[in-house]
Amino acid sequence: MTLSPPDPQTRVEALARFDALAKPLGSLGRLEELGAWVAACQGACPPRPLERVTALVPAGDHGVVAAGVAAYPKEITAAMVRTIVAGVAGVSVLAAQHGVTVRVLDIAVDDDLEGVPAEVTAHKIRRSCGSIDIEDAISAEELERAFQVGATLVEEELAVGTQLLVLGDLGIGNTTPAAALIASTLGLRAEQVAGRGAGLDDEGLTRKAAVIQTALERTAHVTDPRERLAALGSADLAVAVGIMVAAARAGLPVLLDGVISVAEALVADSVEPGAREWFVAGHRSPEPAQSLALEALGLVPIIDLGMRLGEGSGAMTALPILRSAVVALHDMALLADLLAPAE
Amino acid sequence: MTLSPPDPQTRVEALARFDALAKPLGSLGRLEELGAWVAACQGACPPRPLERVTALVPAGDHGVVAAGVAAYPKEITAAMVRTIVAGVAGVSVLAAQHGVTVRVLDIAVDDDLEGVPAEVTAHKIRRSCGSIDIEDAISAEELERAFQVGATLVEEELAVGTQLLVLGDLGIGNTTPAAALIASTLGLRAEQVAGRGAGLDDEGLTRKAAVIQTALERTAHVTDPRERLAALGSADLAVAVGIMVAAARAGLPVLLDGVISVAEALVADSVEPGAREWFVAGHRSPEPAQSLALEALGLVPIIDLGMRLGEGSGAMTALPILRSAVVALHDMALLADLLAPAE
Repeated sequence: MTLSPPDPQTRVEALARFDALAKPLGSLGRLEELGAWVAACQGACPPRPLERVTALVPAGDHGVVAAGVAAYPKEITAAMVRTIVAGVAGVSVLAAQHGVTVRVLDIAVDDDLEGVPAEVTAHKIRRSCGSIDIEDAISAEELERAFQVGATLVEEELAVGTQLLVLGDLGIGNTTPAAALIASTLGLRAEQVAGRGAGLDDEGLTRKAAVIQTALERTAHVTDPRERLAALGSADLAVAVGIMVAAARAGLPVLLDGVISVAEALVADSVEPGAREWFVAGHRSPEPAQSLALEALGLVPIIDLGMRLGEGSGAMTALPILRSAVVALHDMALLADLLAPAE
Repeated sequence: MTLSPPDPQTRVEALARFDALAKPLGSLGRLEELGAWVAACQGACPPRPLERVTALVPAGDHGVVAAGVAAYPKEITAAMVRTIVAGVAGVSVLAAQHGVTVRVLDIAVDDDLEGVPAEVTAHKIRRSCGSIDIEDAISAEELERAFQVGATLVEEELAVGTQLLVLGDLGIGNTTPAAALIASTLGLRAEQVAGRGAGLDDEGLTRKAAVIQTALERTAHVTDPRERLAALGSADLAVAVGIMVAAARAGLPVLLDGVISVAEALVADSVEPGAREWFVAGHRSPEPAQSLALEALGLVPIIDLGMRLGEGSGAMTALPILRSAVVALHDMALLADLLAPAE
């Protein structure tokens, strides 16, 4: 049984409504496709404005950082969790601008995070994860827990009326498992997917590609997407995949961010074929693996501004455009109304 | 005497502040350049959030429509003025979403517009304008009046604390004078600048290019930018140029929209060299002349979504990104603050 896609009939209705608005045919460009997608996800034309949006930011550390694949020390992960809690991280200030709720989740931060609110650490699975070049990131049992956490989070969001999820990420070193998952899923080589992350120099980039290549060789026999996620991912990435799978099953649309969330989306669509229909790409990042995965998913990002901060910041910057598409479909005059009251 | 640019020292300060924020160097991509530009325009780092934004939409008809260069009848111009007044045009609903004030201005609509609010028609210069393939669009005296109207509008906006202007447009047939002005200013041929506007078919496009070519040949002797604007533009385009010149002189930044406002920006920068430094490009439209003019101005649009509705709708869709850049610079934690309170 494949997953139900967003309602095709509503999509057709929404495109017809765009054609009937007081504007030249097709003149809203990609806003029309985006608005029709939201309508189809909601099964309602015009769609309801996207007022309740939540950004989920699973945070975790990565054993592979010890191999020198990151430009920053792992202690930054815990410090950034606190910065989001304090409301002054990049994603926080953009979320405040756009009226978005941010939930940062300590899934596998290598720190006790004493003093942060209990809801941040409530879903913690472990501290850090295995170094993927030499061992699996997490166990099969931890993977199952991660999927349960993902499902629970989606249930919580649905219960409060969330209309759209933004998937962010937080964790020094997390572009390495993301790139490895993309390469393994799509059958690519390490050099094709390794990027500079938060700012690696040439030497660091070479080291990172070598680590990814070793991880790919170590797991060359793996074909099951869940097994791949446990072997090459991490607990925080697995929770995000679990969120995406549960969201797609529940018909809750997801706005993707950079290479981490697009890698997660690729794995989610392998675990649950058809899940991709519930995802929209927020932005293009400079990470080469992100563009490769987007292409494989058939997704075209809304903006392309060279952002590579992570946390969900690119998606958050693109969000108003998705909302503009909905507002246009919901509020603009129909051509018929325009011509009627003319003198 | 050339125009003062946005403050270079503040720009340097803003870029240094972006480097000091709690994020990898350069990781906000183009948001950093945009935020630094706003800071430089304000002469303040961090810049004040862009709360007070006004979209000015000069409207007018174009004699050249009689030559068959437009996909819609000229009566649509007056009907769309009424639609903006009613708050249900594309630009209206996007402006409402983003808290932007819209002022639609009947500068040269070929209609009395009975019953619309007096402030809409207060600056009317004439009804329609000359067909640029056979005669000048407006007289030298009308051009002067248009510049005075532009200066008055900027004074009014400064008096109410407007921090950013969006320049929209409204008028069936207005991509023809816009393309002609771009071609004449940059020394291009008609086929390079003629686009489909609101939806011309192949035959219409050929006709439009021929009309533009005739207009270019008629005015081949013109080198003065004001004279060019009177000969190939229109009263509504001239008011917009007047607004841009006055805004640049007053240090009020302007967010550009599609081919009309970019043509106006190009002329404004010819009339007042250096004015371009006060302009930012909102979006890329499918009109070929827009990309050519943007390149000549050295401006790179924020978004590229195939929008071609006009009215300022593309700029309005890009506006939240400019605001995101300012919010990031204004509200994000500094790296120094991040590391200090860590346990």
